[in-house]
Amino acid sequence: MLTTREAKAIISAAETKANTINVPVIIAILDAGAHLKAFLRMDGAVLGSIDIATKKARTAVLFEINSELVWEYCKPGAPAPCLELTNDGLAPFAGGIPLKNSDGVLQGAVGVSGGSVAQDFEIAQAAAAAFTNK
Amino acid sequence: MLTTREAKAIISAAETKANTINVPVIIAILDAGAHLKAFLRMDGAVLGSIDIATKKARTAVLFEINSELVWEYCKPGAPAPCLELTNDGLAPFAGGIPLKNSDGVLQGAVGVSGGSVAQDFEIAQAAAAAFTNK
Amino acid sequence: MLTTREAKAIISAAETKANTINVPVIIAILDAGAHLKAFLRMDGAVLGSIDIATKKARTAVLFEINSELVWEYCKPGAPAPCLELTNDGLAPFAGGIPLKNSDGVLQGAVGVSGGSVAQDFEIAQAAAAAFTNK
Amino acid sequence: MLTTREAKAIISAAETKANTINVPVIIAILDAGAHLKAFLRMDGAVLGSIDIATKKARTAVLFEINSELVWEYCKPGAPAPCLELTNDGLAPFAGGIPLKNSDGVLQGAVGVSGGSVAQDFEIAQAAAAAFTNK
Repeated sequence: MLTTREAKAIISAAETKANTINVPVIIAILDAGAHLKAFLRMDGAVLGSIDIATKKARTAVLFEINSELVWEYCKPGAPAPCLELTNDGLAPFAGGIPLKNSDGVLQGAVGVSGGSVAQDFEIAQAAAAAFTNK
Repeated sequence: MLTTREAKAIISAAETKANTINVPVIIAILDAGAHLKAFLRMDGAVLGSIDIATKKARTAVLFEINSELVWEYCKPGAPAPCLELTNDGLAPFAGGIPLKNSDGVLQGAVGVSGGSVAQDFEIAQAAAAAFTNK
Repeated sequence: MLTTREAKAIISAAETKANTINVPVIIAILDAGAHLKAFLRMDGAVLGSIDIATKKARTAVLFEINSELVWEYCKPGAPAPCLELTNDGLAPFAGGIPLKNSDGVLQGAVGVSGGSVAQDFEIAQAAAAAFTNK
Repeated sequence: MLTTREAKAIISAAETKANTINVPVIIAILDAGAHLKAFLRMDGAVLGSIDIATKKARTAVLFEINSELVWEYCKPGAPAPCLELTNDGLAPFAGGIPLKNSDGVLQGAVGVSGGSVAQDFEIAQAAAAAFTNK
């Protein structure tokens, strides 16, 4: 179970990394039931990233893998075309990372959006590390 | 314009008050366009309050008044029956408070849910005061 | 068929009346198929009135009567409880008026929101008159 | 903040250009929070363009860039596949242009639909110029 204390630490780590690479982002933390636990929109992030950050985290919770890995199942030629249309729309690109405990049990996910996909992923990794290394 | 720094201070004030009266709540902060700026779900708050806290804040932004005042327009015998069905559903009870600057211009709103309506209102007032007195 | 020229005249008449009684409102004009034809949000009108003005006009088109008359069918004790929940939610209070030609054939509707219900109705009447008396 | 006066001037400029090139279109003006400010459907424009014009403007507000530039992020081979499914569906093709003040701060957007994509873009540019050069 993801605690408020943990959620704050994850957001704080994401914010620190975002400031380091100078990219304002939106950070969404969902629990293992895909319900919002914590959220922060940094000044300067575009409004469109509210839904993207949330959907990346949601995609990571729903399939218990990084959001970009879902693309492997639905990209052209893959066996599950239109998978991305399920669950009210997935965000199958980098920036959503599941949060698992030391036993590998899903506790939630973090989703980041606002920079380039590579930047979002870098920030999400820093955020997830704050949970894993707590 | 509601800043990240202000949003954090508002959430922190709400959390402090919630801890003081020993009621875990959910706090949602929206900007003046009703877009999510910050959010925190305290450990122990029920899932149903995620949407309630958000809708209370949304109601306060949309009408630029406390959420419970909207009930005066749509309660039995009032002139706007079913007003509560507009805007994807309003939450016309206490816990949503608009945030205005010293010129009275709307900057956003805070919504609180998780305790009794009276407790939610008390916490929302503490949260709003952190903005007003900043 | 409601023309662009007519829609502009209706909005202009609403705006003139709104300025006369000093109430900023939102004016929505729908055609006979309930599709948006023209829309104006006057400076100062609250965001919540965007959906209300549109739903009032929609209610008037869908039943070809003034929006407040729909309440007679669904108010407590009336024969169609929950009618207000149909059609994605109705707005059964004053401010929506159907626009009919001289043969009584529906051409569309105007919806007004932003002031008190009585003010909205007064402005909607001025708007509808600009169509009827064209 | 986008005023009613500015919104009318933008719609008027779009309408003038549309008449010049003889293409009836729909023009939607959103504020910086993606809320509808003004709207006009010219006689002859197809119903399907109501949502398209609005979504183009919405896309431009949400990402603070021309709507067609969003396609660069989600087209085949680009790093954000299915980005177009976020935010209730984007319209990543030309005709949506953000409106920014002289300091580069977003004030809203205009969206145009009804002609060819090239025509819609030409009309949207004329509309945006009426705001920039006001």
